[in-house]
Amino acid sequence: MNIEQQFLKTRQQTESICSPLETEDYVVQPITDVSPPKWHLAHTTWFFEQFVLVKYDRNYKVFHPDFAYLFNSYYNHMGERTLRQNRGIMTRPTVAQVYEYRTYVTEAIITLLERGYTAELKGLVEIGINHEQQHQELLAYDIKYILGTQPTFPRLGEQFKLKEETHQHQWLHFSEGLYEVGYQGNSFCFDNELPVHKVYLGEFEISNKMVTNAEYLEFMEDGGYANFKLWHDEGWQFVQNNNIKHPLYWHFRDGEWRHYHFNGLEKLNPNLPLSHISMYEAYAFATWKGMRLPTEFEWEIAAQQLPWGQLWEWTGSAYLPYPGFTHVEGALGEYNGKFMLNQMVLRGASVATPKGHQRNTYRNFFYASSRYIFSGIRLVKK
Amino acid sequence: MNIEQQFLKTRQQTESICSPLETEDYVVQPITDVSPPKWHLAHTTWFFEQFVLVKYDRNYKVFHPDFAYLFNSYYNHMGERTLRQNRGIMTRPTVAQVYEYRTYVTEAIITLLERGYTAELKGLVEIGINHEQQHQELLAYDIKYILGTQPTFPRLGEQFKLKEETHQHQWLHFSEGLYEVGYQGNSFCFDNELPVHKVYLGEFEISNKMVTNAEYLEFMEDGGYANFKLWHDEGWQFVQNNNIKHPLYWHFRDGEWRHYHFNGLEKLNPNLPLSHISMYEAYAFATWKGMRLPTEFEWEIAAQQLPWGQLWEWTGSAYLPYPGFTHVEGALGEYNGKFMLNQMVLRGASVATPKGHQRNTYRNFFYASSRYIFSGIRLVKK
Amino acid sequence: MNIEQQFLKTRQQTESICSPLETEDYVVQPITDVSPPKWHLAHTTWFFEQFVLVKYDRNYKVFHPDFAYLFNSYYNHMGERTLRQNRGIMTRPTVAQVYEYRTYVTEAIITLLERGYTAELKGLVEIGINHEQQHQELLAYDIKYILGTQPTFPRLGEQFKLKEETHQHQWLHFSEGLYEVGYQGNSFCFDNELPVHKVYLGEFEISNKMVTNAEYLEFMEDGGYANFKLWHDEGWQFVQNNNIKHPLYWHFRDGEWRHYHFNGLEKLNPNLPLSHISMYEAYAFATWKGMRLPTEFEWEIAAQQLPWGQLWEWTGSAYLPYPGFTHVEGALGEYNGKFMLNQMVLRGASVATPKGHQRNTYRNFFYASSRYIFSGIRLVKK
Amino acid sequence: MNIEQQFLKTRQQTESICSPLETEDYVVQPITDVSPPKWHLAHTTWFFEQFVLVKYDRNYKVFHPDFAYLFNSYYNHMGERTLRQNRGIMTRPTVAQVYEYRTYVTEAIITLLERGYTAELKGLVEIGINHEQQHQELLAYDIKYILGTQPTFPRLGEQFKLKEETHQHQWLHFSEGLYEVGYQGNSFCFDNELPVHKVYLGEFEISNKMVTNAEYLEFMEDGGYANFKLWHDEGWQFVQNNNIKHPLYWHFRDGEWRHYHFNGLEKLNPNLPLSHISMYEAYAFATWKGMRLPTEFEWEIAAQQLPWGQLWEWTGSAYLPYPGFTHVEGALGEYNGKFMLNQMVLRGASVATPKGHQRNTYRNFFYASSRYIFSGIRLVKK
Repeated sequence: MNIEQQFLKTRQQTESICSPLETEDYVVQPITDVSPPKWHLAHTTWFFEQFVLVKYDRNYKVFHPDFAYLFNSYYNHMGERTLRQNRGIMTRPTVAQVYEYRTYVTEAIITLLERGYTAELKGLVEIGINHEQQHQELLAYDIKYILGTQPTFPRLGEQFKLKEETHQHQWLHFSEGLYEVGYQGNSFCFDNELPVHKVYLGEFEISNKMVTNAEYLEFMEDGGYANFKLWHDEGWQFVQNNNIKHPLYWHFRDGEWRHYHFNGLEKLNPNLPLSHISMYEAYAFATWKGMRLPTEFEWEIAAQQLPWGQLWEWTGSAYLPYPGFTHVEGALGEYNGKFMLNQMVLRGASVATPKGHQRNTYRNFFYASSRYIFSGIRLVKK
Repeated sequence: MNIEQQFLKTRQQTESICSPLETEDYVVQPITDVSPPKWHLAHTTWFFEQFVLVKYDRNYKVFHPDFAYLFNSYYNHMGERTLRQNRGIMTRPTVAQVYEYRTYVTEAIITLLERGYTAELKGLVEIGINHEQQHQELLAYDIKYILGTQPTFPRLGEQFKLKEETHQHQWLHFSEGLYEVGYQGNSFCFDNELPVHKVYLGEFEISNKMVTNAEYLEFMEDGGYANFKLWHDEGWQFVQNNNIKHPLYWHFRDGEWRHYHFNGLEKLNPNLPLSHISMYEAYAFATWKGMRLPTEFEWEIAAQQLPWGQLWEWTGSAYLPYPGFTHVEGALGEYNGKFMLNQMVLRGASVATPKGHQRNTYRNFFYASSRYIFSGIRLVKK
Repeated sequence: MNIEQQFLKTRQQTESICSPLETEDYVVQPITDVSPPKWHLAHTTWFFEQFVLVKYDRNYKVFHPDFAYLFNSYYNHMGERTLRQNRGIMTRPTVAQVYEYRTYVTEAIITLLERGYTAELKGLVEIGINHEQQHQELLAYDIKYILGTQPTFPRLGEQFKLKEETHQHQWLHFSEGLYEVGYQGNSFCFDNELPVHKVYLGEFEISNKMVTNAEYLEFMEDGGYANFKLWHDEGWQFVQNNNIKHPLYWHFRDGEWRHYHFNGLEKLNPNLPLSHISMYEAYAFATWKGMRLPTEFEWEIAAQQLPWGQLWEWTGSAYLPYPGFTHVEGALGEYNGKFMLNQMVLRGASVATPKGHQRNTYRNFFYASSRYIFSGIRLVKK
Repeated sequence: MNIEQQFLKTRQQTESICSPLETEDYVVQPITDVSPPKWHLAHTTWFFEQFVLVKYDRNYKVFHPDFAYLFNSYYNHMGERTLRQNRGIMTRPTVAQVYEYRTYVTEAIITLLERGYTAELKGLVEIGINHEQQHQELLAYDIKYILGTQPTFPRLGEQFKLKEETHQHQWLHFSEGLYEVGYQGNSFCFDNELPVHKVYLGEFEISNKMVTNAEYLEFMEDGGYANFKLWHDEGWQFVQNNNIKHPLYWHFRDGEWRHYHFNGLEKLNPNLPLSHISMYEAYAFATWKGMRLPTEFEWEIAAQQLPWGQLWEWTGSAYLPYPGFTHVEGALGEYNGKFMLNQMVLRGASVATPKGHQRNTYRNFFYASSRYIFSGIRLVKK
């Protein structure tokens, strides 16, 4: 697929994720972490407008002068922006206008690319595509949260469905030694996957399966949420203060556990991989099992022999720069480095991850308290 | 107009207020005080369903069992309800479904009334009409707030426009003495307007005009917002903590004051009555003038000689029960009494007040900090 | 007693209230409303220094230049001041230094007065005495709170003990009519007790006894704290959010109710007047009884036939200026007027009230949520 | 020195740190992070009572049954405890009583040890000593904060004074390779310093001097606090929200920078090592210099050739368990592991660090926002 085709496919894919939504669903922001789908649609478009069209197309006329302010996310370089927590009060532009904006920019990019492009321009479009793909995954999280916290549990369809892992359980063994980590291919990767460097790992054994709902229910029934010894101090406060006693989207109704998914509130399937847990819960569960989470480098090495890709997997690694990491100059340099503090790395991919994002070197990162993401647990023996 | 006609007219009027809105505008809740228009449309409908249809129509089938939970506002009597601050995350039911709900209930009420009615049933429908009319006014406030805090200042049209007061300024004089206050007519009134009772008033002189934008600008230019001596202790903290330096919806742009109204951001008209100020600001302004606000009883007596009705007028009276006030039994008894603490009385009416609500005995009440309401100032000499 | 004697006696009385304290008790501020005793000792001294000595004694040398900043309370007129919530972090000056400061200023005032004085100077000293007496009562509240929220419930002694009311219960009847209210004597009164003015009262019947602990226990046992119908909306939120189920200082231990008082945690005496309740609770209790609280004017008229003075009595009146109320010019003018919003009037006096403050025209005022004050309930028939 | 002597010396040293305090200074808690000195005195004593005397001395009678509740810090294992943020409202027991408690427990430990001891008992006393030494350092931080935030800047004396680093500046070079890290001696170490393990380091160059006040002033004068590009996203929010524009304890007065230290507010010495900065500021400064902070392992290796020990040095490493880290069973197992999330490692020691705590393997850890600690910056070339 050439760059135009990749671009068009990405743009269509984003809109396809939103297709089951009602206009109302596009607008709200139930918690600060969750953005309105309309915002994602516009922001990914603004990114192409701002970083590609405004820079490379002299004749380009911005769709609307206000949009740079309205749909910038965190690029301080690019001037003022709407406060994150205020995204959910913007009723205007309307959803229809945002779709017009998308069409306008999509067409302008295609026109620009059809004139021919430099490697630099191609590189920027590629970043824009990857950026939009990241937002496709966030869209899945946010749509699930918006619908899943409605008192009426609406049904959207069969998207993003998890499957049971049916392969035989095994502990995969890895020897101690020096390993190379970081992205070594020739395609796109993010700056945080570089530079390639060596790490020394002790020997370890890692499960070839994710933890299931059934296993987590055992933890719950054994009083896992009430036993402070299993938790980080901060995690213990988190579950106490927020009165958390089960994973997000679980509901105990009429004597049984149910689970909200895009197709509504269904009876919990015990054999599915456990999802929507915080790193605090992942850690407590592992401690209860007498095991631990893998480090991000153990995971990266082991990934070559593992089936993975239904859920992001919490690691025990803090999100920090690789030795020799350097910021890109300018606004795009704000992309990753400034978040390298107090977040934890997740590795793998999820059912909501767009195709090109499934790399064993990909470093996803979230706060330890995040539960609205498609996260799960894989164990390592101590 | 008979009760069916009044009912139908009220229902239509509510929908007419919302007619310039986009679907998106119906959904959001920018601050806890401001409810989504969709919520008002549904809540006023639920009121008729719950208090009239469910009680008086044996064959009535509720439109949707969830709606009682979703659209109850504060009637603890009627069971659980959505937390007020969560109204803005409910994307479902959709706006279209809420309009269906309205049609369904409107038709059911008409059918019921056409069968004939008792005085009791008529009385309840009357309360429902008055209740919906109150929400019509709140709709005007909330729509203005939702649109007026958009970064893009959308234009809705010419609704709810203030006019200059062109009559000659005069101080109306009232002698001291015993006066009777409270509602004495034969039409509808709220429970808080009763019982009729005597009050003793000293002599006073009251302005026959509202304070204008021009007068308030003088106060601002004289440093009114920076002079603690003019303010209540609580008001002083309020303007400091919220960095308030002018009325709500005023913006200083390109060297001049502008004012958001339904028709967009316009140059401030100095001759219009000042609007959208808190009681704190009203008090500080009056103190700065060496005057004061009227009490609610002075206002009620003077109203017979006053032109009024463009803006609710802050009084110096706390919202308290009249001597002998009694709660109605049951859910409707929750209506007014439980708010009789720490709120201030406003008297009069506004350009957004439906016709039947313009009584000189009507007691409106809000927190002293409220600025999103259609409020203004009338002065009394000390 | 002449003014010097009154002054000296007041100064000694303040120190006598603090005499059972340990140094540590003087320093802390467990909640913003409760000031460290050391602060009261210094602030009342600063008041005399600032408003009397600095103004009337040319040769006076301030004890320490920092103290005006440290011990000003809310007089914006007198320059910057320590934030109220930071009083409890000031370890310096020490308690011993504050006592030196007291001695220094006490002696300087005596020296000044001995030289002879004008009526104006005498008036200011009188205000200072009354100001310090108000703080004597606050000291009692604050000391009780500081000691009463220690996990160890220390015993201080027999101060401020309530007595059972042993007189026969009766409903005192008052006829409707015009009454005069406000202070009419020739001694000191606060500005908020003036001007004298007429009010019209309907007929009413008022209890000649305060509500007892036993009566309040009945309310509790009847589910009073769980019945939303009895409460103001704001009161209901208050008891829910703060998980309040009984009066302040009550503890249920080993199967019985106990009550902290200055002499430690003792078995609750059912016959004592109920104390330490908020206005919310007073209102809910009265509603449960099918009665109501008196208005401040009913109380003022009835007081002449009532025994009173053990506890401040919540009224149903908001704290507002009397008709014709005027601010004094300058810093002393900040005294009362600026608090006339969103507070409720209490009438009477308490066991902690200094002698000269027992006037039936005295208007005490607190937020409806205040429970650390010596407050009680008297009922009026509806 | 035998164990009794070490124990006694530690106990005396703690009291010596507090000797310049007034009684009032022992009591307050200006922010949650800063505990009252009285609390440290009691808590370290409780530790010996609870973990040694109660377990090993059958005849031991606890000093006061309430103290276990009052002075437990975070050991959930040992039952309920006072909430951390409430330490500053406990006026009782008094300071004098806490000193009695100390004497009582000190004597009981000595008596116990004189009877002879097992290795296990000795080990526990050793942990107690190390625990109390950690609190000695915290006492220095907390006393400085309590005194340093008084409006009056009291002078305590010459303790904990920093010295200029006078040696020649140099970049020390280290080659890439496998290194062993973790404690390998035969004396005491904390569980978080183990197990010894291998890490692979790239080559690096590290400064043999700490960053000075003068260098940091350059950063400030170059607009470092106003340039978002230098900061972590979280750090940027931190300095914005808290309006931070210089290190803690710096004050600009009369045209020059001053610095609070135990001996009062003094003119800033530009040649002293910079102290009292958060990790956010350390990172921003390093970024501004085009350099970075060392990782904890680079530091541990380099420490053998470095002068260090005046200030704890922020590293770029998150506080995480070493590979193979295991919790000790029981209450002492709560010691370190549960904090291994969202904190950053500091290495080195400070002028307030007791002698035995100066190990190049010692892992100190604080939140990135901590400024009240004795922290500084050492740079590594990128």
